Amino acid sequence: MRSRLLCLKMVLKLSRCNHCVTVSNSPDFAMVHKVAIVGGGSWGSALSVIVGESVESKKHLFDTTVKLWLLREEVNGGEDLAEVINRQHENVKYLPGIKLPKNIVASSDIALCVGDADILIMAVPQQFLAKTCENIVSKIKPTAIAVTTIKGIEVDEKRNMCVSSVIIQKILKIPVAALNGANIAPEVAEKHFCEATIGVQREQDGELLKQVFNIPTFHVNVVRDLHTVEYCGALKNVVACAAGLVDGLKFGTNTKSAVIRIGFLEMINFIKQFVGEPSMETFHESCGIADLIATCFSGRNRKVCEAFVQGGHTIEELEKELLGGQKLQGPYTAAQIYVALERRGLVDKYPLITTVHKICSQQWEPKKLIEILCSQK
Amino acid sequence: MRSRLLCLKMVLKLSRCNHCVTVSNSPDFAMVHKVAIVGGGSWGSALSVIVGESVESKKHLFDTTVKLWLLREEVNGGEDLAEVINRQHENVKYLPGIKLPKNIVASSDIALCVGDADILIMAVPQQFLAKTCENIVSKIKPTAIAVTTIKGIEVDEKRNMCVSSVIIQKILKIPVAALNGANIAPEVAEKHFCEATIGVQREQDGELLKQVFNIPTFHVNVVRDLHTVEYCGALKNVVACAAGLVDGLKFGTNTKSAVIRIGFLEMINFIKQFVGEPSMETFHESCGIADLIATCFSGRNRKVCEAFVQGGHTIEELEKELLGGQKLQGPYTAAQIYVALERRGLVDKYPLITTVHKICSQQWEPKKLIEILCSQK
Repeated sequence: MRSRLLCLKMVLKLSRCNHCVTVSNSPDFAMVHKVAIVGGGSWGSALSVIVGESVESKKHLFDTTVKLWLLREEVNGGEDLAEVINRQHENVKYLPGIKLPKNIVASSDIALCVGDADILIMAVPQQFLAKTCENIVSKIKPTAIAVTTIKGIEVDEKRNMCVSSVIIQKILKIPVAALNGANIAPEVAEKHFCEATIGVQREQDGELLKQVFNIPTFHVNVVRDLHTVEYCGALKNVVACAAGLVDGLKFGTNTKSAVIRIGFLEMINFIKQFVGEPSMETFHESCGIADLIATCFSGRNRKVCEAFVQGGHTIEELEKELLGGQKLQGPYTAAQIYVALERRGLVDKYPLITTVHKICSQQWEPKKLIEILCSQK
Repeated sequence: MRSRLLCLKMVLKLSRCNHCVTVSNSPDFAMVHKVAIVGGGSWGSALSVIVGESVESKKHLFDTTVKLWLLREEVNGGEDLAEVINRQHENVKYLPGIKLPKNIVASSDIALCVGDADILIMAVPQQFLAKTCENIVSKIKPTAIAVTTIKGIEVDEKRNMCVSSVIIQKILKIPVAALNGANIAPEVAEKHFCEATIGVQREQDGELLKQVFNIPTFHVNVVRDLHTVEYCGALKNVVACAAGLVDGLKFGTNTKSAVIRIGFLEMINFIKQFVGEPSMETFHESCGIADLIATCFSGRNRKVCEAFVQGGHTIEELEKELLGGQKLQGPYTAAQIYVALERRGLVDKYPLITTVHKICSQQWEPKKLIEILCSQK
């Protein structure tokens, strides 16, 4: 285990060093950048509302046409979803009822979408990320920069934990940044005021990438703490499961606030222990405490875990019933992390993450969460 | 203004120094301590549930009888409320439906309650605190220690901001600690798991005071950061007003989480600027982020400010209608702080606190909150 974790750390450190010297990819503020969004589900479509408005108002920096790639899919009895989007300016399947800006041009031709893009916004589901990257690696500009908006911790073939930026970087070999924040998709699409954080490895990318997204209703802060931004996005889902269990057990706000606080500290400790040396300020950005709060009060992890306590269903059954078979990130992430903790003998240091894993995998009853909380010293 | 703030800082620093040398008040772990709760409203009564259970299980440290002082008040057509509590073990007026432990002995005789107490838990409303202290100063043991559970910032006759520990210490001249956390009273009384923080000035008080409250369903952490604990308790009410305004304006979780985050940073900055040198870890204790979350989702400040947006009433009218005339802490605290900020030319640094004050005092429309958020750089 130790060697694997060292390996993870080495990957992170090496990739950081690589970036520091890749000056050929420095953004040029005198040129006009083309932006593409890779992934047209509800989240990619919601982001297109923000990015479309943003680039439209910054013609000195960006080409105003933003390409949105999505899988070829038939709707309305045979029409290509991309064509419907381009005619109706609405993703009728994944974000119905929301008008997309007219400068968003959808296509299911991935080469066309990414071929001339200077900035690639990655918004595909985590499980399709590696395959998508392999599909586009020969088609992208070598000077492109990627921004991942994908949350989740994966275990690779060597059983190293890795986040989406590591997968993208390994395959595409271009600089990667990460966007994360308290950004529930429908509210983003409706342009309710919100904030987000971009984590960059290279300081010179920060301002340009901020400008891709930053508009009055979507405020972006940039930090030099890429992996903290990403790990927060994955770990918060585990804490949200605990919050959902508290709701399902009919405990009140005091207990839920305590669970969020304990989870927040476990997130900080986990990142300190496994990822690197985070700046404490990053945890106070939108990607940290704000995203955690939003997810613990409104996210799908909370909702499914609340239902898990109330009904007689497994998490897998609830995924099918409530999420149309999509994988719930929290229990999956908790299981991945539990393996790492167990091998290092660190289970006792992360009682909340451990308890979420044990309950969601039906090794423990939900009420055990309260017993564990009460028994902590 | 500057001299007044310096004055505040001097008071804090002097009082700290005073404590460091008051060795005669060091708690003695070989003796059995008597505990009294001064204030039998809903909060004092909820605390008595915790303290009653706690001291009962620690007979080596505490006298198991806990005296609960409350104002003489008639209930049930003429009976003294204290007598009813002692017969029924229930505060039928302020915490109906909750059984108090049998070792809680209520009385409206303040001299009897505080005269032999080694630990005084202060739980009266802020506006009666100074008068209560003046009433008991000649009656308490000179070796007693006080724990304030009273939140709020007051302006004294010299227009210095001060928190309850300063008032208590000034009048009683004994060491003071503060208890604060995500502790909504009815849930505390029902023994739903929760956490709290005690801020002490003297390290030697920490363990004893922790033992007064710490039971499996009420976990206490001790920090050496008394005034941060207290100021968090007051400032969070201002942020909760902003959260209530967001709810009233029908914005969603993204906006609310952003407001909580921005408010959290303003709390930290305010305490750094006006109070002293806080430990960042204190903000991650229950008194910090957890209490803030609980108050922004369940507290009365949130509720009244939501109603303020929806109806055509002033805050004062809503206080009468929804709180039986009790003063809402958030708008009051925001107004106090605004004066201090304005005099120092710091209004721009605290846009959220300023906006809460301007909206609650009807100088600005509620929707201005969103404009202010969107216009921040």
